[in-house]
Amino acid sequence: MADPVAIGSAFCTHYYGLFDTNRAALVSLYQTNSMLTFEGKQVLGAAGIMQHLSSLPFQQIRHETVTIDAQPTLSGGILVFVSGNLYVDGGQTPIKFSQVFQLLPFEGASGYWVYNDMFRLNYG
Amino acid sequence: MADPVAIGSAFCTHYYGLFDTNRAALVSLYQTNSMLTFEGKQVLGAAGIMQHLSSLPFQQIRHETVTIDAQPTLSGGILVFVSGNLYVDGGQTPIKFSQVFQLLPFEGASGYWVYNDMFRLNYG
Repeated sequence: MADPVAIGSAFCTHYYGLFDTNRAALVSLYQTNSMLTFEGKQVLGAAGIMQHLSSLPFQQIRHETVTIDAQPTLSGGILVFVSGNLYVDGGQTPIKFSQVFQLLPFEGASGYWVYNDMFRLNYG
Repeated sequence: MADPVAIGSAFCTHYYGLFDTNRAALVSLYQTNSMLTFEGKQVLGAAGIMQHLSSLPFQQIRHETVTIDAQPTLSGGILVFVSGNLYVDGGQTPIKFSQVFQLLPFEGASGYWVYNDMFRLNYG
């Protein structure tokens, strides 16, 4: 397998790039059995996850990654652990966050989709 | 399966309890294919992981968990995402950390072992 950290980093560039510029396109990265836990709220499946992500209370957001760790995992998957900063609606004050993705390879296609997704803000 | 969050919380109580009082006993929770990424440093296998954890530069530590998220994952496993505070050598100033564990069930026994482990300090 290629280097998990390189794959994890490329995934983050893709994922947060979509999140910050074309959030609705993230639907391509989730499937019906994907799970999201967002600030403790549990959501199951791509449709519910997209509904949650599209309802977040800001107009603009920018993600800046600070650390990206990754390890190989089961079934050819990759576990990615991110820390970084959010900038919301043009604000200059970073809001710290951490996020975990478990990625699994698409069957019969290149690339990875998100099986597990857990997001937390890291308050002061 | 029992509630992943309940299992994740019970695991954290057990894991950090051992870490804070009898660090060497953590060896029972890792296997030869366990992976640790600790502040970006990659270590493979229970022996190497224990060597790393036992060499950390403090005498006493106390872990306080603040958030514990968990989801079911492949092969009956559980993905656990923790944020919390560390108190080192009797200090009163919390050091924030985040940690991810992928737990897999022991074959032929109850309980879980740590397949993936990623740890980061969250600097202010």
